[in-house]
Amino acid sequence: MPDKTLRITRAAGRSPVNRRPVMLGIAGDSAAGKTTLAAGLVEAIGPQRCVSLCTDDYHRYDREERRDKPFTALHPDCNYLGIMEQHLQLLASGQPVLKPVYDHATGRLTRPELVEPNDFIIVEGLLPLHSKLARACFDVTVFLDPDEPTRRGWKIERDTRGRGYDAAAVLAELDRREPESQAYIRPQRRHADIVVRFAPVEGRDDPGVPLSAELLLRPTIRHPDLDEIAQPGVHRAVHLRLDRDTDGRPVDTLHVHGYVEREESVAVEKAIWASIGEPMSGAPECLGRLGSAGRSEPLAITQLLLLHHLVEASR
Amino acid sequence: MPDKTLRITRAAGRSPVNRRPVMLGIAGDSAAGKTTLAAGLVEAIGPQRCVSLCTDDYHRYDREERRDKPFTALHPDCNYLGIMEQHLQLLASGQPVLKPVYDHATGRLTRPELVEPNDFIIVEGLLPLHSKLARACFDVTVFLDPDEPTRRGWKIERDTRGRGYDAAAVLAELDRREPESQAYIRPQRRHADIVVRFAPVEGRDDPGVPLSAELLLRPTIRHPDLDEIAQPGVHRAVHLRLDRDTDGRPVDTLHVHGYVEREESVAVEKAIWASIGEPMSGAPECLGRLGSAGRSEPLAITQLLLLHHLVEASR
Repeated sequence: MPDKTLRITRAAGRSPVNRRPVMLGIAGDSAAGKTTLAAGLVEAIGPQRCVSLCTDDYHRYDREERRDKPFTALHPDCNYLGIMEQHLQLLASGQPVLKPVYDHATGRLTRPELVEPNDFIIVEGLLPLHSKLARACFDVTVFLDPDEPTRRGWKIERDTRGRGYDAAAVLAELDRREPESQAYIRPQRRHADIVVRFAPVEGRDDPGVPLSAELLLRPTIRHPDLDEIAQPGVHRAVHLRLDRDTDGRPVDTLHVHGYVEREESVAVEKAIWASIGEPMSGAPECLGRLGSAGRSEPLAITQLLLLHHLVEASR
Repeated sequence: MPDKTLRITRAAGRSPVNRRPVMLGIAGDSAAGKTTLAAGLVEAIGPQRCVSLCTDDYHRYDREERRDKPFTALHPDCNYLGIMEQHLQLLASGQPVLKPVYDHATGRLTRPELVEPNDFIIVEGLLPLHSKLARACFDVTVFLDPDEPTRRGWKIERDTRGRGYDAAAVLAELDRREPESQAYIRPQRRHADIVVRFAPVEGRDDPGVPLSAELLLRPTIRHPDLDEIAQPGVHRAVHLRLDRDTDGRPVDTLHVHGYVEREESVAVEKAIWASIGEPMSGAPECLGRLGSAGRSEPLAITQLLLLHHLVEASR
């Protein structure tokens, strides 16, 4: 049937050349901060140039159906990962997709929705970096790796307040998911260009102190030159350290201190923003915004770094 | 970003070679007999080797939303035709799709379902032959073109019995749809390899007489040699006539007479079945079956001819 393949190729070739979007993939466990990170980026870039999608919409079963399954929503078999890969490929080549929709409020799968590619596509979810094919669709990849007590706190906060569960049920669910977190979610860490770890810093981990972040910058992509900004003694808010990854490979680690005064972080943000060379007066206000009205300067700096990479990839 | 394209191609290339299905496209207006034709073919081939899908699932709006629109479900803008084309291409290249689902009973769009390619895919609906790209995905194409009083009768029958409307409402809907039938549905007729017209034959059009069918066989595909079967005087059930299409182009027309005795039709069916060379004793019983327990020998002969083409295309 090669004649049919040729006919299809010829017929498809008549459509105008599609614009190929820059794609960012954000992976991480449940309540690791993926949506918050993505939302700030979409707002900063502007929804007219940027679209985001969540790969958890590719759940194969609804909440009711999952009750009888021997695995949780974290398991690859609980998701249409082949379709997710297909849609990522289509979007990466500038084509629209009809994306499935999972309603977290009801736990049900509903009517799909059209996602049209744009200049930038931000993809976040549990398993976007699971396969080599999915990873190949991204220009930049991030893994969110908050320390476990922090993530558990975030999950309880969100699921009791936003989704109506009680805390004991959330903790039980976390325990039930733990083996699959370990088997499928955390292994994505080693495929990310940047690993972001929010955690309190020892000695400064009183409840009122904003969290710090540690950004592992792998040499898999070209990071901005942070030498001037992050060398010791210039800004208290950040410092850069040559380090070894858990597997022994060389990496840079950017420490972003949540406990410094906001002014010190803002100076760093300005310096990074200037390095992007965007024709705007300063870093967008929406960066660093937390869901519940708070702010995190380490989050803002993480988002700025990602903006830098997105802008670079679009050039 | 050519490096990303290359990475995607390389990563995708690791998957096993997909089997490319033979695809049949059946277009026609509402209640033209598409589902009945398709169902007999799926049953004859066997659901383990054949999958069918309806392109009406690609409706962009549900029934409620369509109320406010200046067009009916027949209009291309009322459907995700770009996504339909994309899914047909994916299936034609042996890849699965997550197909949207439109529930005719409730008029609502619901959760999508996985369609995996098989040896044969039968696609039926209002607009599967609308675009050149969609048509390129099919090995054989059919347009169902019953005479209008027959179709109106079928539509009233189905929608009053099966979907709970009253006859006056169905007729009003048919009138409302007429301009779009003319603009978008009927033009697909000229792109079909076979046009099937069920209609009573003048002089034999008493209500009790089974409908006859006229099959326009365009030389766009190689039809089986019907000379021996359909030459005058051999079988009363069929005859073949060299004809001109409405646009003046040469065609064969196979007249299949519904008014002859069943035995005469069965003899023709056996002869066509033998020409397919399938290792079975006779034509499958399911061919010619009408939804409401009746039988139509002209339908059986139409389905046999299509089976011939599907088997040929798979060789």
